[in-house]
Amino acid sequence: MSDQRANQPKKQKKKKPQRLKARQPRGFVDRNADDIRATDAMMAKIKEVYERYGFDPVETPMFEYTDALGKFLPDTDRPNEGVFSLQDDDEQWMSLRYDLTAPLARHFAQNINELQTPYRTYRAGYVFRNEKPGPGRFRQFMQFDADTVGAPNPSADAEMCMMMADTMEVLGIKRGDYVVRVNNRKVLDGVMEAVGLGGDGNAEKRLGVLRAIDKLDKFGVAGVRLLLGAGRKDESGDFTKGVELVEDEIDGILNAISIDFDEMADGRLKTSVTAEVFPYLASTQFADAKNETSNKFSIGTAELSQIQKLIRASGYGPDQIKIDPSVVRGLEYYTGPVYECEILADIPNEKGEIVQFGSVAGGGRYDGLVKRFTGQDIPATGFSIGVSRLQTALKNLGKLETSDAIAPVVVCVMDRDTQALAGYQKMVQELRNAKDNEGNWIRAEMYQGNPKQFGKQLQYADRRGSPIAIIQGTNEREQGVVEVKDLIEGMRLSQEITSNEEWRTSRPAQQTVKREDLLKTVQHILAEQKAEREA
Amino acid sequence: MSDQRANQPKKQKKKKPQRLKARQPRGFVDRNADDIRATDAMMAKIKEVYERYGFDPVETPMFEYTDALGKFLPDTDRPNEGVFSLQDDDEQWMSLRYDLTAPLARHFAQNINELQTPYRTYRAGYVFRNEKPGPGRFRQFMQFDADTVGAPNPSADAEMCMMMADTMEVLGIKRGDYVVRVNNRKVLDGVMEAVGLGGDGNAEKRLGVLRAIDKLDKFGVAGVRLLLGAGRKDESGDFTKGVELVEDEIDGILNAISIDFDEMADGRLKTSVTAEVFPYLASTQFADAKNETSNKFSIGTAELSQIQKLIRASGYGPDQIKIDPSVVRGLEYYTGPVYECEILADIPNEKGEIVQFGSVAGGGRYDGLVKRFTGQDIPATGFSIGVSRLQTALKNLGKLETSDAIAPVVVCVMDRDTQALAGYQKMVQELRNAKDNEGNWIRAEMYQGNPKQFGKQLQYADRRGSPIAIIQGTNEREQGVVEVKDLIEGMRLSQEITSNEEWRTSRPAQQTVKREDLLKTVQHILAEQKAEREA
Repeated sequence: MSDQRANQPKKQKKKKPQRLKARQPRGFVDRNADDIRATDAMMAKIKEVYERYGFDPVETPMFEYTDALGKFLPDTDRPNEGVFSLQDDDEQWMSLRYDLTAPLARHFAQNINELQTPYRTYRAGYVFRNEKPGPGRFRQFMQFDADTVGAPNPSADAEMCMMMADTMEVLGIKRGDYVVRVNNRKVLDGVMEAVGLGGDGNAEKRLGVLRAIDKLDKFGVAGVRLLLGAGRKDESGDFTKGVELVEDEIDGILNAISIDFDEMADGRLKTSVTAEVFPYLASTQFADAKNETSNKFSIGTAELSQIQKLIRASGYGPDQIKIDPSVVRGLEYYTGPVYECEILADIPNEKGEIVQFGSVAGGGRYDGLVKRFTGQDIPATGFSIGVSRLQTALKNLGKLETSDAIAPVVVCVMDRDTQALAGYQKMVQELRNAKDNEGNWIRAEMYQGNPKQFGKQLQYADRRGSPIAIIQGTNEREQGVVEVKDLIEGMRLSQEITSNEEWRTSRPAQQTVKREDLLKTVQHILAEQKAEREA
Repeated sequence: MSDQRANQPKKQKKKKPQRLKARQPRGFVDRNADDIRATDAMMAKIKEVYERYGFDPVETPMFEYTDALGKFLPDTDRPNEGVFSLQDDDEQWMSLRYDLTAPLARHFAQNINELQTPYRTYRAGYVFRNEKPGPGRFRQFMQFDADTVGAPNPSADAEMCMMMADTMEVLGIKRGDYVVRVNNRKVLDGVMEAVGLGGDGNAEKRLGVLRAIDKLDKFGVAGVRLLLGAGRKDESGDFTKGVELVEDEIDGILNAISIDFDEMADGRLKTSVTAEVFPYLASTQFADAKNETSNKFSIGTAELSQIQKLIRASGYGPDQIKIDPSVVRGLEYYTGPVYECEILADIPNEKGEIVQFGSVAGGGRYDGLVKRFTGQDIPATGFSIGVSRLQTALKNLGKLETSDAIAPVVVCVMDRDTQALAGYQKMVQELRNAKDNEGNWIRAEMYQGNPKQFGKQLQYADRRGSPIAIIQGTNEREQGVVEVKDLIEGMRLSQEITSNEEWRTSRPAQQTVKREDLLKTVQHILAEQKAEREA
């Protein structure tokens, strides 16, 4: 190969200097002004809800010691991956946080003697996942969390669910377009024990059951029945192996995950639900597990029932928050209630397919996370909003607040001597230090590019979306006047003008005013433009 | 050693379960609510100034490819250190950004065809330094930058200096407590060439000269003269080797760094300053360097002179922005004007010593940074504020806005049946969904800890700084009333009460109101407390 090339006639190539390629590492992105302003507006609204609920901000650094973070990422197939880690000078391993919950547990444990409990905090910040990036999947993304540490009762979980619902409504998502679903890890654990899947030896099968339940939305009850039993063949003929439970067991699981807490009266739930869900329990080989199972399951359902009542008493209907025993949430560390907020509206995905958008926030109770440090159980509950996902959902729902930032007024540079430049600079400073008629600061800038071509300056102002350009050549300066050009009106008029000739002579939307009237004129045009936008 | 130990009697120690220690990696810190709120308030003010000046936000990710960042950290003794780096799956090295300038250069080069120039942006975010942490030195800290890319003229540098000054004043730092100093890299480079220190062979000596000049504040002109000459012995007898220049050369340098641009007329600067600063040039062995030197030096001084005129014309005096040819800024990549903002007020440092606080922001012109990617010169200028340092300065000047966030109203949990809990929950929701008389949302929470001890609930509310506690036991519920306790007034009164007996019977600052008057009562007390605070 190299010999062949050597024989080919060489082209006389001018050797290019080696240049760096400007690109980000995979899965990392830049964000532009519109995106940043929309996110800021959205986060401000979320923050307002959290503050109303009595939560205060706290922040932890990007790095934690690797052992402090633990291994709680859902992707258990690659337990050592998923995080960005490096070794410090002193040989200790540090990792970039992959969520905001593990660092909060560390923070609380570290300051346990100073902090008031219940410790109610919110945190927003970037988290990092060392995973394969894909459409909508980044290796750095933002979460916005709220947690209460030191809150043992289901009322704290109920509060989280209400706060999730309030957040959605404050962001403009209407009822029916979102729902908060609530389950309890104890319910599914109890169900699985009831069908004889307790114990370490059945971990694989339990995972199979949870995965089958997680497909309820997609395949319906019949599909889940197949997955819990012999297996399921899809339309393409692909076969998914089932968990191979018997009918009684499958019935028990399907009964349990379809309990309707709104239909079921409190008393009935307490006394007979277990018998109703698992009618076979007395007669099966698993009867010896009955007591413990029944206990765990009924504690779980009782907690859900209490959450449901508190939520309904506070005026939230099942169209906002729904107890749903089929909810499976992946994170290992949950110990009780789990909850997630789903966007129900059909929204096109990256490929343009219309799909249910799915979850934008999720959380639950994690009574064991702080214990890793302190040795004592510390009850805690909280949730996390995926900020980018939520922003995408809002955008697709037409609810994303678009920026109302007005681009700056551009003062053009016609003459380049220091005295002229000083004059332009003074105009800019005068505008910057004043407000428009609405009380907002006027944004202004002097053109800082190469001023040789006047046309480029106007093009810059146009493309930047500037409302107004200010022009003062030698003649104007001598006469003590400035040209003020309304670029919005000018754009509109220019579309009506057909010839270059006409354009040059008419100078649309441009007026000559005295230098001392510059500010007044700018304020007036900005007010007119605002009225036009709102008309 | 180990043998000796083996012979010692062993203590029967109860083996403790291995627990994780809750701590952050060195140089990383958590931030509490007061700190976060103060930073947010400060950043909002800075952002407002940048927006007025016509800058828009942009954001780059925390990671960049290591080669894209380059090696521009001031600590040139450890060129490969100072950054956190790790290898990606595809073997490429990535680093956490150590400033916000190198990533901007990458971002601009990557999007050069889409972006309007001049590209005026601001960015705030964390940067990382893999260095030894110390008091006030963290390995993760925040910067707030503004840059104009594609701006070739000194007017862009002048604008940056004015924006720095405006930022300080918006933050409440009064004139005389800060100053923006401006120099030009070309001036010092020209000076060093003039004294024969041009060329690669003199890099070490040039560094020595810059280090000597950098000590002007500390040692005065006489001290710098020694450092440029034979060397300087300090009070303790320690000797610092000098650069060993001859008198003429030293005079030239000292003349140059003491030019007063405000005293020097424009014309005089242009025509004769070089001859005046370097009277020996014609007669020394370095005369052949005269033309180039004189050219570089005079371009530098001419640029400074233009900056000075634009600044003065815009109404900024030398007490705000001062041209100071003795300013040395470390970063290698600067190519023209450099500027820094210094806090002049005497402020105690971490050790309690009263010192000049020093620089809180700095920047300059870096026409070559984008070129690394594009191969073509792209003129650019900008600066960076060290957010934590500035916040420390503001705190010490008494100008840091303390948070005016009111802690939440706490609804106590007296009865624990679901019906009672639902009642408390309703009160909380009613308060959360209402505003105080000032139009701010009322913050409220139900006590989410273990409700067994009522005393603990009041203690929690007190320590949290809650304004009001709401109490409703069975009796009150049956009568349709609630107890509303003004905790601020209660605290005041309790200091006047001497006996427990008196305390129990007087129930200071507590009133019984009808349930339906709860909101009205809370609003009234909040208004009274506000009036009290402001009195």
